[in-house]
Amino acid sequence: MSTFQPRDPGFEARVHASFAAQAMMRTLGVTLGRVAPGEVELSMPADSRFTQQHGFLHGGAIAAGLDTACGFAALSLMPEDAGVLTVEFKVNLLAPGRGERFRFTGRVVKPGRTLVFCEAVAHGLTTEGEERLIATTTATMMAITGRDDVKG
Amino acid sequence: MSTFQPRDPGFEARVHASFAAQAMMRTLGVTLGRVAPGEVELSMPADSRFTQQHGFLHGGAIAAGLDTACGFAALSLMPEDAGVLTVEFKVNLLAPGRGERFRFTGRVVKPGRTLVFCEAVAHGLTTEGEERLIATTTATMMAITGRDDVKG
Amino acid sequence: MSTFQPRDPGFEARVHASFAAQAMMRTLGVTLGRVAPGEVELSMPADSRFTQQHGFLHGGAIAAGLDTACGFAALSLMPEDAGVLTVEFKVNLLAPGRGERFRFTGRVVKPGRTLVFCEAVAHGLTTEGEERLIATTTATMMAITGRDDVKG
Amino acid sequence: MSTFQPRDPGFEARVHASFAAQAMMRTLGVTLGRVAPGEVELSMPADSRFTQQHGFLHGGAIAAGLDTACGFAALSLMPEDAGVLTVEFKVNLLAPGRGERFRFTGRVVKPGRTLVFCEAVAHGLTTEGEERLIATTTATMMAITGRDDVKG
Repeated sequence: MSTFQPRDPGFEARVHASFAAQAMMRTLGVTLGRVAPGEVELSMPADSRFTQQHGFLHGGAIAAGLDTACGFAALSLMPEDAGVLTVEFKVNLLAPGRGERFRFTGRVVKPGRTLVFCEAVAHGLTTEGEERLIATTTATMMAITGRDDVKG
Repeated sequence: MSTFQPRDPGFEARVHASFAAQAMMRTLGVTLGRVAPGEVELSMPADSRFTQQHGFLHGGAIAAGLDTACGFAALSLMPEDAGVLTVEFKVNLLAPGRGERFRFTGRVVKPGRTLVFCEAVAHGLTTEGEERLIATTTATMMAITGRDDVKG
Repeated sequence: MSTFQPRDPGFEARVHASFAAQAMMRTLGVTLGRVAPGEVELSMPADSRFTQQHGFLHGGAIAAGLDTACGFAALSLMPEDAGVLTVEFKVNLLAPGRGERFRFTGRVVKPGRTLVFCEAVAHGLTTEGEERLIATTTATMMAITGRDDVKG
Repeated sequence: MSTFQPRDPGFEARVHASFAAQAMMRTLGVTLGRVAPGEVELSMPADSRFTQQHGFLHGGAIAAGLDTACGFAALSLMPEDAGVLTVEFKVNLLAPGRGERFRFTGRVVKPGRTLVFCEAVAHGLTTEGEERLIATTTATMMAITGRDDVKG
């Protein structure tokens, strides 16, 4: 349903390469699924190393997935020489982080030259195929160009 | 400078025990420092496993520290039989997550019976003793009682 | 498309009565349009009294519409004896507040017994029938019962 | 306590002129008090036209004061040719909007070339001299240059 035109025809490869460079995603076991212009999907298995004191997925791990989903959704629409930094994000936690897997879906709502506004949702998935909305995020992403330390 | 009266005189031990039960904090290498009524301080060494694609501390790791600092600041003021869940938090990222260590300081701004409003800040610290504000959070925490799956 | 079951069969009349009691909405010229379980639509004419220094609709007026749309979306699902208070809301301003009219659409995403999570969007409408997304909100609403000063 | 250096020595006059151009502030009866580099204070009398259904100051009016306090705190540090637009703000409502007067205090936390991060607090004041924190905000402001429709 995405109607955005990517400015970089090689956006998909670029998103994959940048995602692969995120140590945090590797550490959390998050993998990159579908990549479309302005939209990405991440997947993460439940892992007891990333839980809070009640055994649910920690809010920080949920935030990591949501923030990253927003960041790469934004990056998919940026020109080849731009990198992306998060300006801010807000997470609303709607249900405990239960599930065998978690899915983080980020999408661009409003792309601008400098700032890109994104939304993301996190679902907990059971092995029986049920899925439950556990968190939502709204985020402001910033395009960065001309800085050696921030690349796509 | 804290002026809150803890409802549970054993709040400090309870915060320490609950923190120790957070696998996510152990995984990130976060340790619990000062605990006062309505205030806690966390510390985390830089670790390349938790970085984003530019080598800075990942926003999700920053969020994990900030959310947790708020959660335990809130828990320190709760009655003995209450657990705490995060309702929402917003992170503003003010500077790249650079540093040898990171400090997360959370404090209660307004304690309520059901909802507790907290703020937290994250600083990046260098070995030369410099410190830099990298992120701030505002968060709503909820006291949960009478649920077996959510305990202090 | 709403799939929520209202707990109060008279929810529509109750939303209308409570909306009519909001002096702020009257002052801003906001009217209540469609009311469905978990969803309300508000409409507001452009008015130069409510602009900021560049002549656009002021962020506070946009926030007033978005917050109210969330509040009444939440109220529509609450039991007869409950009132609603806003816990928090975040507004992302995506485009300047231009338009002949403004529409604020609020909907419940996740209704809980105590807390209700809502989203709302603001559109600027021109006389030529164009509409433009100018702002979005996510909000946490709280059900209040047994307090004389907070009624439906 | 402000330690920011204004880039425009005439910042105070510029803030006053821009504030005077905000019809919304005039409509709400808000006046501009103290202006310092990176800090402004606004004052508003209670007025039944701006209440919600329980008779408290409407969240939208609170947001208008908080957003504006942040905007002018940011503007006070901007170069002469820059205007300011709000990117996003989050309001946490901590207590009902009661008071004879309301005070909105905004301050810059982190000024950047393009984005300025601000915080603001709202207090309700009684005629007996009591004051109560009713709301807090964190906000991202953007400096705009070279656009005729957005001036300081």
